[in-house]
Amino acid sequence: MFPEYDVIVVGAGHAGCEAAAAAANMGSKVLLVTMNMQTIAQMSCNPAMGGIAKGQIVREIDALGGYSGIVSDKSMIQFRMLNKSKGPGMWSPRTQNDRMLFAATWREMLEATSNVDFWQDMVKELIVSRGTIQGVVTGMGQEIRAKSVVLTNGTFLNGVIHIGEKQFGGGRIGEKGASGITEQLVELGFESARLKTGTPPRIDGRSLDYTKMEKQEGDEEIVGFSYLPVERIKPQEQRACWITYTSQEVHDILKTGFEQSPMYQGRIKGSGPRYCPSIEDKINRFADRDRHQLFVEPEGWNTVEIYVNGFSTSLPEDVQYKALKMVPGFENCRFFRPGYAIEYDYFPPTQLKFTLETKEIRNLFFAGQINGTTGYEEAACQGLMAGINAHRNAHEQEPFVLQRSDAYIGVLIDDLINKGTDEPYRMFTSRAEFRTLLRQDNADMRLTPMSYEMGLASEERMELVRKKMDEVEQIKKTLADFSVEPAAANEYLSSKDSSPLVERSRALKLLLRPNIDLKELCAEIPELKAAIGDVHIHSLEQAEIQAKYDVYIEKERELVKKMASLEDLMIPDSFNYDKLTALSMEARQKLNKIRPNTLGQASRISGVNPSDVQILMVYMGR
Amino acid sequence: MFPEYDVIVVGAGHAGCEAAAAAANMGSKVLLVTMNMQTIAQMSCNPAMGGIAKGQIVREIDALGGYSGIVSDKSMIQFRMLNKSKGPGMWSPRTQNDRMLFAATWREMLEATSNVDFWQDMVKELIVSRGTIQGVVTGMGQEIRAKSVVLTNGTFLNGVIHIGEKQFGGGRIGEKGASGITEQLVELGFESARLKTGTPPRIDGRSLDYTKMEKQEGDEEIVGFSYLPVERIKPQEQRACWITYTSQEVHDILKTGFEQSPMYQGRIKGSGPRYCPSIEDKINRFADRDRHQLFVEPEGWNTVEIYVNGFSTSLPEDVQYKALKMVPGFENCRFFRPGYAIEYDYFPPTQLKFTLETKEIRNLFFAGQINGTTGYEEAACQGLMAGINAHRNAHEQEPFVLQRSDAYIGVLIDDLINKGTDEPYRMFTSRAEFRTLLRQDNADMRLTPMSYEMGLASEERMELVRKKMDEVEQIKKTLADFSVEPAAANEYLSSKDSSPLVERSRALKLLLRPNIDLKELCAEIPELKAAIGDVHIHSLEQAEIQAKYDVYIEKERELVKKMASLEDLMIPDSFNYDKLTALSMEARQKLNKIRPNTLGQASRISGVNPSDVQILMVYMGR
Ligand SMILES: Cc1cc2nc3c(=O)[nH]c(=O)nc-3n(C[C@H](O)[C@H](O)[C@H](O)COP(=O)(O)OP(=O)(O)OC[C@H]3O[C@@H](n4cnc5c(N)ncnc54)[C@H](O)[C@@H]3O)c2cc1C
Ligand SMILES: Cc1cc2nc3c(=O)[nH]c(=O)nc-3n(C[C@H](O)[C@H](O)[C@H](O)COP(=O)(O)OP(=O)(O)OC[C@H]3O[C@@H](n4cnc5c(N)ncnc54)[C@H](O)[C@@H]3O)c2cc1C
Repeated sequence: MFPEYDVIVVGAGHAGCEAAAAAANMGSKVLLVTMNMQTIAQMSCNPAMGGIAKGQIVREIDALGGYSGIVSDKSMIQFRMLNKSKGPGMWSPRTQNDRMLFAATWREMLEATSNVDFWQDMVKELIVSRGTIQGVVTGMGQEIRAKSVVLTNGTFLNGVIHIGEKQFGGGRIGEKGASGITEQLVELGFESARLKTGTPPRIDGRSLDYTKMEKQEGDEEIVGFSYLPVERIKPQEQRACWITYTSQEVHDILKTGFEQSPMYQGRIKGSGPRYCPSIEDKINRFADRDRHQLFVEPEGWNTVEIYVNGFSTSLPEDVQYKALKMVPGFENCRFFRPGYAIEYDYFPPTQLKFTLETKEIRNLFFAGQINGTTGYEEAACQGLMAGINAHRNAHEQEPFVLQRSDAYIGVLIDDLINKGTDEPYRMFTSRAEFRTLLRQDNADMRLTPMSYEMGLASEERMELVRKKMDEVEQIKKTLADFSVEPAAANEYLSSKDSSPLVERSRALKLLLRPNIDLKELCAEIPELKAAIGDVHIHSLEQAEIQAKYDVYIEKERELVKKMASLEDLMIPDSFNYDKLTALSMEARQKLNKIRPNTLGQASRISGVNPSDVQILMVYMGR
Repeated sequence: MFPEYDVIVVGAGHAGCEAAAAAANMGSKVLLVTMNMQTIAQMSCNPAMGGIAKGQIVREIDALGGYSGIVSDKSMIQFRMLNKSKGPGMWSPRTQNDRMLFAATWREMLEATSNVDFWQDMVKELIVSRGTIQGVVTGMGQEIRAKSVVLTNGTFLNGVIHIGEKQFGGGRIGEKGASGITEQLVELGFESARLKTGTPPRIDGRSLDYTKMEKQEGDEEIVGFSYLPVERIKPQEQRACWITYTSQEVHDILKTGFEQSPMYQGRIKGSGPRYCPSIEDKINRFADRDRHQLFVEPEGWNTVEIYVNGFSTSLPEDVQYKALKMVPGFENCRFFRPGYAIEYDYFPPTQLKFTLETKEIRNLFFAGQINGTTGYEEAACQGLMAGINAHRNAHEQEPFVLQRSDAYIGVLIDDLINKGTDEPYRMFTSRAEFRTLLRQDNADMRLTPMSYEMGLASEERMELVRKKMDEVEQIKKTLADFSVEPAAANEYLSSKDSSPLVERSRALKLLLRPNIDLKELCAEIPELKAAIGDVHIHSLEQAEIQAKYDVYIEKERELVKKMASLEDLMIPDSFNYDKLTALSMEARQKLNKIRPNTLGQASRISGVNPSDVQILMVYMGR
C-alpha cells in the first residue's frame, strides 16, 4: 500500500517537519511517519521561538528555504529583538507564539507541500541490510521502503516522565513513548545514553494577579524571522508578557521537596540542560541568589493557559503548588497540570558525519533532540540539513555541509560531530568564532544563494536577495564616492557630539564615526539621499551595518587565524582556570576537569567555546 | 492544592464539556479533569454535528443553555437542513465542521466560563464512602473532593483498538485508555458490559479525483443550531462534500479480509452500532445491495485530510487500502491512517435514575458513551442533564427531568433508563411519540423557559424566546381575525392550484390549505402584511408552522393516549411480525425474539419504538 519513497522521516517534531519539507521541496518523494497527526510540530515546552543565538538560527533556516521562520511569523503573539542595545552581531529576534496556531500552521504548510505524504503510526524498527538503511517497520506491522531515512524521535525514545517520586513512561505528558529503536540501534553497534529535560507547570491565567508583576510589551517594530514578505500582526495587536520573581520563601518551600526529587535521589541519571535548569537546580547552584526571575507567558491568543518560564521543575506537585503560591501575582494560582522532567535516550553525535548521516549505517540520518541537543531551533536546523542530505544521498549527489564561518548551523553541527556532548547542547553566540559575521540581518545573503543553487530556496527568495545585494553594493559605492560639505553636515554632527568637518569628507568616513546613523544622515543631506535613490530599508540598514562592521569582521578573521596558528601553544600544568572569571562557568568546569595540554586541545572540548579560547589566548599573552 | 468542588466532571468529551459548562453556569464550582487538555471536545469520528433527530437534540441543548450548538455554528464549514422536503417535524439541521476549530472553540468557551477549573490527569479511582461519592483519585495520586461527580469516560474504559488481527490498548487511536474505574465500580456492585464502534480510514485529499464524484453543496440559507445570534459563515463560503459509491468489486476485495476481521473471528465481543455499521457489516447484512454510498467529507478549512463517511472498518489495513482504491475517485488514494474498531466498557443504563445519578452511589452521575449511547449529540445532551442534576444535588435542590413530550432528550433518557440497551443507542425520530411536537424550530419555546427558571438559560436567551412567543401569538391572532377579500387572493390561489374564494375568508383558513405559504400570502395581500406588522422572520415561520400543525399535534396526543389505553391489549402467540414490513428491522428482530404478550410489554422493549407500536396497533385493528 506504499510506494518506495526517496526519504522517510520518522517523527513530526521541529526536526522532522523541516526534514520532510526540505527533502520534498528539493524533489524527493517523502513520507512523514509520526505517532499522532494531531501533535505535528507540537511545542513541548515554551511557546516561543528564537532568542539569543537561536533567533539567528531561525533566520538561517529561513534563508535556506525552511519553514520555521514563516510558521513563527504567522503564529506570533509578540515580537522582540533582543540585545538591541548591543552591536548588530548580537541582535536576536524572538517571538512569543500561539502554541495551537504554531502547530496548525506547520501542518497546513506541510499539507501544502506536494511531495510530502503522511502516515500516522509509531516506527518500531528499521530495515537494514548490508550496512544500508532500506526502510522502516511500523507498530501496525507495515514495512515501508525508502532510499534514505531520517530519525527525529525527540524525547520519545524510552521516555520516562518524573514528578516527585512518581515516574511513568511517556514521550511527553499525555503521550506514549517509543520503544524498540534504541535497542535495535545498540545491537547494530550504536552507543546510546540518557539525557533529561524539564518543563514548568501550566497555570490558569484567570487566577493570576498581574498588577503585582512587571509588564513586558512587544517591540514597536515587528521585524519577524522570514525574509519573505509574510503577513505579520500589527505591533499594537501584540500580547504582553509579565515578569515576577521567586523569593527566599519560595526557595525554602521548594527545598522541602528535595528529598522526593527524582534528581536529588539519583533516580534520574541523565544530565539536564545547563542553560535551562530547573528551579531546584537554580536554587542549588546559585545558593547566594535570593530570587530568580520568572517570565509569565501567555500560550496563545484565545487561551487563558499560562507558561511560567523559569520555573521548570520535577518536584512533587504539591510542593510546586505551595511554592508558586508565594510568588507575587500567584497567590491564588490554579494549576492545569504540574511541571515534570523527562528522561530519554540520545545517541552521542560523534557517531555522525557532517551531513548528519550515521557513520554506521548508510543513508540513515539523525536530527534533533536525538543527537543530544535541546531546543526547537537546534532541532529544526538539524532537520533541515538532514533532509537536504537525505535527499542528496537518495539522488546520489554530493553532501551539503555548512562551515563554521557560514552559519550558526555550521557551528552547531561542527560542535556536535567534533566535540560530541554529554549534556543537552544549546546554541550561544559564544560558540561561534565568527559572531560578527553570522548576524541575523545577513543570513539571507550568506545562505540563500547556496540553497538556491542546489534547488531548495525558491526563485522568489533568491530574487529578493539579489536585489538586496545589488542595492547594498550600490549604496556602499555611493557612500564611498559621495562628498559631504562641512556646511551640510556640521549641525547634525554637533548634535551627535561629533567634531565638525573642516573640509569635505566622504560619506563613508562620516558613517564610521560612533553615533552616526545613515538614515539620519540622509535626512540631513537631501543630496546624499538622492544619490542613494529609492532603495529598500533593509538594504540601507544592511549597507550601514556592513560599512561599520567591515573592520571588525576583518579583525575577527585575523583572530580566528591566530587561534588556529596557536593550536600547539602549551598550557602550563599549573594553570589556574578559576582565576579567569571571564571564562564561562561551563568552560572553567570542563577545563579544570580535563586539563588540556595545548590550546588546540582546549578548543576541542565540548563546552569550551571560541570565546573561552580567545580569553585563554589573551591571558597567555598572545 | 485543590479546594472542595461542588462538581467534578471526569472526561472532557462532548458529555463532559456540557456537564462542566452547565453546572458552572448554574453556579457550581466545577473541576474538569481530563487526560489531555489538548484533546478537549475532540470529535473521535466524523467531523459533523446534527442530522436526523440529532439535529433536534443539538437545538434542544442550545435552548437549555448548553454550548454544543454555538460551538457547531462557529466551527461549521457547511450547513444543510435535512428532510426539507418533509414536514417541519422532520427537518433536521446538520453541520459539517472543522475538527480542530470545533475543539478549539469548545476549549475557548470553557475557559471563558468562570466557574470551570481544569486539571490534566487520568482519574483512576473514585472516593466513595457510605454509598456516597466523595471525590476522585488521579493517576498522579491526587485526591480531589467534590459533592457530586459526573463520569463521562466515553470509549476510554479498558478500550481495545482492533485493526485486522492486530489489537492494542487505547481510548482512541494514539491515545491511552483508562483502567481502574470499571473494576472499582464492578466491585461496588455495578454491572458493566462491552460495546464496540468503528471509524473509517483518513485520506489525503490531494490524492482524490473529485471529477468522478457527485458534488454536495451546502444550503443556500444557513440556519444553524443556536437560537442566539451567533456569527456564522456566509453560504457562499461553505465547503462542498462529495458522494461516491462502493461496487461489487470493492465488496469482493473487502471479503478477502473477513477471515482476519476481528468481528468475524469473534475477537470483538461487544455489539456495534446498528445504524452506523462498518462497511463489512453492510456488505454482509445487505448482501443483495451491489453498492453503498460514501460521503467524502473535508475535515476542515485548511487541511487536506478527508473523512470517508460510510467506510468504517476494522479489516486489515492493506485490505482497506486495496478496496478503497477501487472506488471511483479513490484510484490513487493515499492513507493518513487506516480505519479501526474500538471495544470499550459501558454500564447498562438501567442502573441510573432519571437524573442520570446512579442508583447505587449517591451523587455519582454517568453521562455519554459510558451509558451505552453512540454519537456526540447523544453524549452532549446527557452531559448537560447530568451537569444540571449534579449541580442541583450538590445544592440540595429538586431533580430536573425532561418528559418524553418535552424533548428528544427526554425520550433518550427515558429509553435508556426504562429499556436499557445492549447495543450502541442512537436517536431517531421514530423513537419519539411526539415527533410533530418535538421540532427543531420550537426547541427554544419548549425548553428555554424551564431552563431560565432554574437559572441556566441566560436572560438574553429568555428575552429572545419571550419576544418570539409574543410575536407568534400576535400573528396567530391576526391570522384568525383578518378577513381576505376574494379579489385580493384569487390570483395567487389559482397560481397554486387552489380553488378561488367566493366570499371573504379568514386568513388562517386559507393558510390551512395545502401549498399556501404565509410569506407569499403577505406579499400578495399588503393589508395582511401591515396587520401582522414588523415581526422577526422566525416568528412568522413559527406562527405558520403552528397554525398548520396544530391539528396534527392534537392527533398525535390522541394517538399517544390511545396507545397508553391499549397497554393491556393481548398480542396473539402466533403473531407473524415478519409480515409487517412497515416495522423497523430492529423491531421485527426484537419482537420475534422476545414475543411480548401485550402491547404494553412490546412498547417497553429496547429498539421497539413508538412508531412500531403504532403500526402494531393499527394492524390489530385499533
Ligand atoms: C518536557 C520537555 C521539556 C523541555 N524543555 C526544554 C527547555 O527547557 N528548553 C529547550 O530548549 N528545549 C526543551 N525541550 C526540548 C524541545 O521540546 C525539543 O528540543 C524539541 O522539541 C526537539 O525537537 P525534535 O524534533 O527533535 O523532537 P520532538 O519535538 O520531541 O518531536 C518528536 C516527534 O517524533 C515523534 N516520534 C517519536 N518517536 C517516534 C516513532 N518511533 N515513530 C513515529 N513518530 C515518533 C513524536 O510523536 C514527535 O512528533 C523540552 C522538551 C520536553 C518534552
Ligand atoms: C473509533 C470511534 C468511532 C466512533 N464512531 C462513531 C460513529 O460511527 N457514530 C457515532 O455516532 N459515534 C461514533 N463514535 C462515538 C462518538 O465519538 C462518541 O459517542 C462521543 O464522542 C462520546 O462522547 P463522550 O463525551 O461520551 O466521550 P468521548 O468523546 O470519548 O470523551 C471522553 C473523554 O474522557 C476522557 N477520559 C476518559 N477516561 C478518563 C479518565 N479516567 N480520567 C480523565 N479523563 C478521562 C478522555 O480523554 C476524553 O476526553 C465513535 C468513537 C470512536 C472512538
